[in-house]
Amino acid sequence: MSGPSDHVDTRVRVRYAETDQMGVVYHANFFVWMEVGRVEYYRARGARYRDLEKEGILLAVVEANCRYLAPALYDEEIVIRTRIEEANPRKVRFGYELFSAADDRRIAAGFTVHVFMGLDLKARKLPENYHELFGVPTKQLR
Amino acid sequence: MSGPSDHVDTRVRVRYAETDQMGVVYHANFFVWMEVGRVEYYRARGARYRDLEKEGILLAVVEANCRYLAPALYDEEIVIRTRIEEANPRKVRFGYELFSAADDRRIAAGFTVHVFMGLDLKARKLPENYHELFGVPTKQLR
Amino acid sequence: MSGPSDHVDTRVRVRYAETDQMGVVYHANFFVWMEVGRVEYYRARGARYRDLEKEGILLAVVEANCRYLAPALYDEEIVIRTRIEEANPRKVRFGYELFSAADDRRIAAGFTVHVFMGLDLKARKLPENYHELFGVPTKQLR
Amino acid sequence: MSGPSDHVDTRVRVRYAETDQMGVVYHANFFVWMEVGRVEYYRARGARYRDLEKEGILLAVVEANCRYLAPALYDEEIVIRTRIEEANPRKVRFGYELFSAADDRRIAAGFTVHVFMGLDLKARKLPENYHELFGVPTKQLR
Repeated sequence: MSGPSDHVDTRVRVRYAETDQMGVVYHANFFVWMEVGRVEYYRARGARYRDLEKEGILLAVVEANCRYLAPALYDEEIVIRTRIEEANPRKVRFGYELFSAADDRRIAAGFTVHVFMGLDLKARKLPENYHELFGVPTKQLR
Repeated sequence: MSGPSDHVDTRVRVRYAETDQMGVVYHANFFVWMEVGRVEYYRARGARYRDLEKEGILLAVVEANCRYLAPALYDEEIVIRTRIEEANPRKVRFGYELFSAADDRRIAAGFTVHVFMGLDLKARKLPENYHELFGVPTKQLR
Repeated sequence: MSGPSDHVDTRVRVRYAETDQMGVVYHANFFVWMEVGRVEYYRARGARYRDLEKEGILLAVVEANCRYLAPALYDEEIVIRTRIEEANPRKVRFGYELFSAADDRRIAAGFTVHVFMGLDLKARKLPENYHELFGVPTKQLR
Repeated sequence: MSGPSDHVDTRVRVRYAETDQMGVVYHANFFVWMEVGRVEYYRARGARYRDLEKEGILLAVVEANCRYLAPALYDEEIVIRTRIEEANPRKVRFGYELFSAADDRRIAAGFTVHVFMGLDLKARKLPENYHELFGVPTKQLR
């Protein structure tokens, strides 16, 4: 029936390279962290994105969004809370909440939407054996 | 009064560093290009973002969004079409369309929302002498 | 006879994303600029690196070095002066000088060494029709 | 007496964003990892680079070098082995060896040289209370 899935938490430590001259993390880097969150989401469920790619299942980002709530600072540990918000055999939507590990301060919230593609970079349906990983609802029996 | 402002076009050439192993530009880099678009938008209107910062007017991103329509490829020239979609003394929203300079293929569309801040990274109102630059509507006289 | 080749100058404008919280360009980004310099070096000589790759000639970096002489600042225009310092059918060494377009201040100097590889990522000899592009000395006739 | 210091090992997992279309990690990113290695080197010795900066001790990179020995691949865990190779009150040289955590394959070796600066970005001598952290040899008594 596919209610929203449980989340997976991942941590990154802010790198100097990720800051900008405003003294905070440059905003585009949050999307790199979300990708880290996705990869660890798969791993926590027993899959590796690199294996998915080898089996010809690529995920292409079709939309990405982030709302910035508080600055992320150099050397902070950031928790990336990742969940699948919605999935069908064509696409999946991940949701993210980012917060500071030290003080629980909310840093950002966002989402990314991905379509499944083959190695030819054309859209394909997600094979059934991966439905559970992405939380695709199973067909209803009458 | 403040209808949407005219756009400014800027070009970037895709760098090898910006590609990923899928053979296309990594999606987070589109937000870096949008920032290039903003800076050149100011410059085309006679202002420099670095001067704004020196005068104590910082723009903090509070939301960023991108819809990806077609892959951007290594060494392509990309046109970043930037406009201000909405502005008031507290915040400004930029809209972007990205397309290939060679074949007019639409690559992406997105927006960013920014609040004006002082050097203390606290919200401040945009001084009136900058209203025109950002397309902030002037107060109506009765 | 292969004295050092003439240089090619390319310009980049410093992006906000390239700065760090020290208020200057983060040092790793200089290597991205050197790559921009190489690509424009090829283009100025009538070749495109993307075509080289399509023909199965990849250049793998085996060494990279940069000496930092002065900080590069946000929104500055930087000139990347690129030349081939040495080449043979196995490898090529590029040299770079970076300076500010506005005041000729020297920013950095560096080099990169590359080996030629095939699509299988194994070393290969550069085909003769590309010797001129890379300044590989032609064999001497007696 | 300052023989070379012991090393500190840090691990990073290769991010998708760090790969390029050659299917391996883009070479400039190795310098970002070296910086991660330095920061964890300090932390393992009870110091935090962010605290150093707050106390007005900045380290400016004056040279960076990397020799690339084998490609680093997406999702691999990389060990960054960091040591101080040489230090005096004016500058410090860090050395790095990078290898794959899974198979001990050597990925790269490199070094960075840094000068100590104050908040004014001018050279300064490292205060004595930090000599031990950086392995600066103590003055000999007769």
